[in-house]
Amino acid sequence: MRVLLVGATGRLGAAVGGALKGRGHQVVTVGRTAGDIRADVADPEQAARVFSEVGDLDAVASAAGDVPYKRIVDMTPEDYLRAYRGKVAAQVELVRQGTRHVAERGSFTLIAGVLNRDPIVTGSAAAMVNGAVESFVRAAAIEIAPQRINAVSPTVFTESMAEYGALFPGVTPVDVDQAAAAYVRSIEGAETGQVFLVQ
Amino acid sequence: MRVLLVGATGRLGAAVGGALKGRGHQVVTVGRTAGDIRADVADPEQAARVFSEVGDLDAVASAAGDVPYKRIVDMTPEDYLRAYRGKVAAQVELVRQGTRHVAERGSFTLIAGVLNRDPIVTGSAAAMVNGAVESFVRAAAIEIAPQRINAVSPTVFTESMAEYGALFPGVTPVDVDQAAAAYVRSIEGAETGQVFLVQ
Repeated sequence: MRVLLVGATGRLGAAVGGALKGRGHQVVTVGRTAGDIRADVADPEQAARVFSEVGDLDAVASAAGDVPYKRIVDMTPEDYLRAYRGKVAAQVELVRQGTRHVAERGSFTLIAGVLNRDPIVTGSAAAMVNGAVESFVRAAAIEIAPQRINAVSPTVFTESMAEYGALFPGVTPVDVDQAAAAYVRSIEGAETGQVFLVQ
Repeated sequence: MRVLLVGATGRLGAAVGGALKGRGHQVVTVGRTAGDIRADVADPEQAARVFSEVGDLDAVASAAGDVPYKRIVDMTPEDYLRAYRGKVAAQVELVRQGTRHVAERGSFTLIAGVLNRDPIVTGSAAAMVNGAVESFVRAAAIEIAPQRINAVSPTVFTESMAEYGALFPGVTPVDVDQAAAAYVRSIEGAETGQVFLVQ
């Protein structure tokens, strides 16, 4: 399959790209600072340029979305808006525009995350955007069929425990390859409207 | 208790106001076009003015949040952003600023809705914002304690079936008073981090 992968340079995106290539898929990477196509897909015009350049696709996979981590009292309205733009609006835009470029039974796989089901202090923006992504996926699935859409929602990665482990006391991490496998399941499988928990 | 009620002129807000007054609470209403205080709390400066004018509070209850209903292919990025501002950012702002004005064991009650668990065609923005609100509530609860926060998530109202019934085939509606009762439960009870399903 021909897969557009957004956020390929991050820890998860690199693992997803590796897993997909290892299974014989053609992967076209998009990123703000690196990738086959340089673009910020949170900007609708740049997203349009990406889809125009890349041509026909079987799948869109997104592994991007930075979110600020601060206590609510330290957050600003702009922090929450930045989280919305970076992880919700950017991924919604991939679907909103992408349905015209993805095959009839092609798929979208978006990234969510654990923090809306297992919250942590400083995680209110992360929870907010993860909940938004999961809910959008469930709603979009019934509109875009027979195209499919799923979300991957991993807990903290083994590879990230040195940086973030202190925020997740007592939480068993997962290897980033387990999350990448969930993208394979979404892309090669037939499920839609699902949130694949990786935990 | 002294309760700040946002969105008091809508169908739900009016029922919440009636239920709270009927139980002896003092209700200060806020709305863009009507209410004891006129303000759009999606604007942080106007929200600040509201909290400054109203003084000490025991609870904040929100029943406001317009969202566009269109198919994904007919939505614009601005439609999703408007949904985010109107139902997520506005309610997050009530909490972000409100913790400094609400009593130590006071509460916040936000409005979500059925469409993130039972999606309908044209409901992707509604689903997105409802998921965001529910997830924010769960995350905020562990930060703001002993202050409390809950969401109310009603299905379609009996009183709204004439307008919206066609979008909800086979769905049993609930009376708006049942949703108002969930606000009473949130405000007078001791639960936090909960989503009260009214269905």
